[in-house]
Order: sequence, then structure tokens, then C-alpha cells
Amino acid sequence: MISILDIKDAFDRISGHIHKTPILSSKTIDRLVGAEVLFKCENLQKTGSFKIRGATNAVKQLSTSQLSNGIATVSSGNHGAALSVAGTRINTPVTVIMPSNTSKIKIENVKRSGGNIVWCEPNQRSREQTLEKVVSDTGAAVVHPYNDARVIAGQGTAGLEIVSDYPDIDAIITPVSGGGLLSGTLLSAKYTNPKIKVYGAEPLEADDTFRSLQEGKIVPNKTTNTICDGLRAQVGSITFPIIQKYVDDIFIVNENDIVSSMQLIWSIMKIVVEPSSAIALSALVSNKKQLKGKTVAIILSGGNVDLSNLPWAC
Amino acid sequence: MISILDIKDAFDRISGHIHKTPILSSKTIDRLVGAEVLFKCENLQKTGSFKIRGATNAVKQLSTSQLSNGIATVSSGNHGAALSVAGTRINTPVTVIMPSNTSKIKIENVKRSGGNIVWCEPNQRSREQTLEKVVSDTGAAVVHPYNDARVIAGQGTAGLEIVSDYPDIDAIITPVSGGGLLSGTLLSAKYTNPKIKVYGAEPLEADDTFRSLQEGKIVPNKTTNTICDGLRAQVGSITFPIIQKYVDDIFIVNENDIVSSMQLIWSIMKIVVEPSSAIALSALVSNKKQLKGKTVAIILSGGNVDLSNLPWAC
Repeated sequence: MISILDIKDAFDRISGHIHKTPILSSKTIDRLVGAEVLFKCENLQKTGSFKIRGATNAVKQLSTSQLSNGIATVSSGNHGAALSVAGTRINTPVTVIMPSNTSKIKIENVKRSGGNIVWCEPNQRSREQTLEKVVSDTGAAVVHPYNDARVIAGQGTAGLEIVSDYPDIDAIITPVSGGGLLSGTLLSAKYTNPKIKVYGAEPLEADDTFRSLQEGKIVPNKTTNTICDGLRAQVGSITFPIIQKYVDDIFIVNENDIVSSMQLIWSIMKIVVEPSSAIALSALVSNKKQLKGKTVAIILSGGNVDLSNLPWAC
Repeated sequence: MISILDIKDAFDRISGHIHKTPILSSKTIDRLVGAEVLFKCENLQKTGSFKIRGATNAVKQLSTSQLSNGIATVSSGNHGAALSVAGTRINTPVTVIMPSNTSKIKIENVKRSGGNIVWCEPNQRSREQTLEKVVSDTGAAVVHPYNDARVIAGQGTAGLEIVSDYPDIDAIITPVSGGGLLSGTLLSAKYTNPKIKVYGAEPLEADDTFRSLQEGKIVPNKTTNTICDGLRAQVGSITFPIIQKYVDDIFIVNENDIVSSMQLIWSIMKIVVEPSSAIALSALVSNKKQLKGKTVAIILSGGNVDLSNLPWAC
């Protein structure tokens, strides 16, 4: 099991390599939702998402011999760019297997970060088979985007920064996809103060974690037809038990609400967030009765959006 | 003359009412411009611009009798919203005279902030005549958007925050319109460390300050046909002499470069800035030889943009 010490160690290991992202707030949004909302701005993080936390924590624990054949991963974008930065920093080549439907901005982000892209079909089986082939061809060390204790501990440092600044916060909401950010946040929050409620926000169109919790075992996504291109992965075998043990609830959000929250954040907060981040505010808006008067942190997980393809008329 | 003490007093007076905005940076942008760039994010300020600094500093110095008939101003938007917030906070009605071509988002911003709008034609004469009429009808106290020592001292607190954190910075670039932000920044920077270079960034399409400096006296704008809707005002009789005495240069920027810098900031920094802010990065890009290797702060003055009317295809 990952301990709070693992997360604190991760923080010490990575803090020279990441931004301590600001926590922003807005009286206008507070009034709208009836709560005090703290936005943890991982969209302003290096590489434009929280993924640099877990990637850096994992890469820094690889030995010289493990690094000798490079690093490989599968990613729809943000983890790929983060791992590319973490590998390039120590002159280690990084191969990123990307689904063929990855957004242009996320492809560019990986390229700019120095990663080599290998394409796969946009389904779980092709992802896994392509990764296996790359590993067997090259001997690369794999850093999975979420189903890896080092990655989970790294992602937990965002929550650690929140609870260090606000130890008496009432609740934290994070998006959930493979579960790395949610499980890491659960561990850092609950170990620090068990009274903190932690919720996941998941698209109705990719709700495997919600249904897996209901059924008591991991079940696959029925669709991944969501605008949240960062939330199409399956919850993992390491992340799921942590979520199952600690999470207070998973809030399901529809596509229209995600776009509305995205516009609200852009227009009021003046920051660029991707749909996969905005979903956490949608979850709060939909559950504002339950969270009325509370202090709620929302982890804005990333800001990698194609500005020439926005989900509204402009 | 406004002293550094006036700016420090302004800071003490307003600091409970404003955000201490973050200073963000990006290795990608540093590489692009060949300098270390510090973005002072006044787009993340309350009301979405630095204008809350000067407005709050002015309003807090008005006596009860001065406030008894309300407050009035002329503004294309950001100062109007800021003054509305500063007035509403102390239950004083605020009238904002706005040109008929003001952007929708800035109109909404004033309304949301509690201001009452009175329309005028989009020219200097109509602005002044309408303000005179409002004042003669109501007896309101006027807080000019820039040609007011209290406002200038307030705007100077953004620069004060920069030089407090980075006393050895090489240069600061701010947009210039009426000159409130530039003159305030000149005073806070030069009084703190006379070695700091301070530059203004002005649209080619509204270059009155540049030409006024060349001619040694205030000359009017020939056009205000710029995408920078916050930079269409005339430099003022109080701000101009400060700029004339202290400014190191005014950099002139064309419209295409402004849009490119805006896209660059949105896509790399993950923050929403308006064209009137992005111009300061354009000025740096165009003058990167001169500023090579330097540490340069850019004041991102505001982020009030109509998201349904962006200056690129999406």
C-alpha cells in the first residue's frame, strides 16, 4: 500500500522539477455554487497538466540500467508529454504510444517535449499490444500512465499541496479516468485529515469507475464518446482498490454540462482548462445542495486544448 | 509628484481588496524569446484586470460627502467594472459612461459588478460631454480611468509587487493607452531600482503616446482601429509627463503580431488574456535582440475577452 510517506517522498523528489501551482478563487463562482471554491491550477503546471508529477516521480526512481533502453508508455497525450519531459531531462529517449484519434494539440505537446510517437488504434487492446511490441523490440522501461504506485504517489502531491495550505478543507473533487489522480488525492487527503471528503467526477459517456464501484469489480467502459479526451481510459487494478476503499462518491456529468463549466472557467477565472478538467466544476454545480457552504477544492487537471477547435461557436 | 510612498500607501490601502496575482513563467516561451520572462498575471486579478488597483485606491480616499452623490467615470470597460466593484463594496452607486462600440463581455462585466451604464458615442468629445452632463445632473464624484494621481499610484502597485519579489529584474513591459499602468509602473520600478528599464507597448493603430513623445507634446490618436479595445484612449495630461521623464522606449506593434502573441499565451501559458495584454509579449518578441538574456517582466493587464468572438478560426 502507498503511504503518506511515499507521497511526501515523491514531493521532495519532484519539487525542484515542477511548479507549485497557484490556488485561485473567484467570488463570482462562489456565489454561483454557494460554496467557497479553491481551484488548484494544474493546467498551469509544466507540460500543461498534473501528469508531470507522477511521471517525474517514476522516472527519478528508475536505475541507470533500467533507463539504458529508454522509456515507453501509452497515453492519449498529457502523460506522454510529461514522461517525454521527464525522460528528455536525463537524456533518455521516450516512446509514446498514442491512439490515432489523439487531439492535434496533444500530439504537438509530445513532439515538443522530445517524445517519439508510435501510433495505435483507439482501443484498449491495440494500446496494450503496441506497447508490448515496443517493449519486446527495445527493452524500454514502462511507466504506465496511472497503474503504477510511483505514478500514483506523484499525482498525490497535488492534493498534498492543497491540504498543506488548507488542512481543514471540507472536500476535494478530481476528475477520474484511469484513477491515478483520484487515488493519489484520496491517499494524501485522507491520511492528512480523514474528515476531508474526496469525490471523483466522471463523464456519463465513460463511466467505468462509477459502474465498477456499483458492481464491486472492474467493469469496462461501454463507450468513450466523451469530449473529455483525457478521461477515456479504464480504471486500473492498482487504482481501483484505493478508490473503492476511500472515495466518498463519484459524480456523473453529461457532456453539455462539461462544456458549460469549461466556458464558465475560461470567462470568469481567465484560465484555459480542457474539458477533462472542467468536469470537476460541473460535478460541484450538480451537487451544490450537498456541498452548500463548504470549502471545496477542485483540481483543474490540465489545459491542453486545441484553440482552433473549441466546443462552442466563435 | 507621486512618490514611492504614495504607491506603498496605495498598496496598504488596497491589499485587503485585491488578489496578489501570481507571476508565471514558461521555459518554452523563454526559449522562443531568448530571455527569462516573468508574466505578472493581472488577468487573474479581481474583475479580470489591473484596474481594480487604481479604482480601489481612489474610492477609498473619497470622503463620505464626496461619496454622497455616487461616483461616475468614462470607460471602455475594465475601469468601469473595477470602479463598479469598488463603489458597490461601500454601497455607493457607480455610473459608467461607455462608448457604444464596447465589447459585449465588458458591458456584462460592468453590469455584473453593479454599475449603471450610460452610453456615449465612441469618440473623445462625446465621452467628455456625457460625463459632464452626468456630473452636472447628479453631482457624482469622478474617478478618471487614468488621469488621476490616486489611480496612477494604485496601478503602480502591480509593478511594486514585481520589484518586491524581483528587485534585480532587468526590464518591465506594460501596455500603454491612457498611461495609468505605464506611469504607475515607471514610478514603482524607477524609485525602487533606477537600473530597471521600463517600456510601453502600443498598437501601431493607436500610437498617440509614441508620437507624443517624438513631438514633445500630447498629440491625438490618428486612428483607434485596433483589436486592443483597452488601448484606444488618449494619453493624459498627468500620465504623459511621467512617461516623458522616465520611459526607456515605446515599442509599436502591428495587429497580426498582437493576435499571434495572444494565441501563444493562451496555448502555452494556459491563461486567457485580452489583445490589450498580449501586445506586451509582442513587443518583447519584436525586440528580442535588445533584450536577449535579460529577465523581463510583462504585465498581462487583463483577460476580459468575448469567448464567442475570438480573432482566429475555431
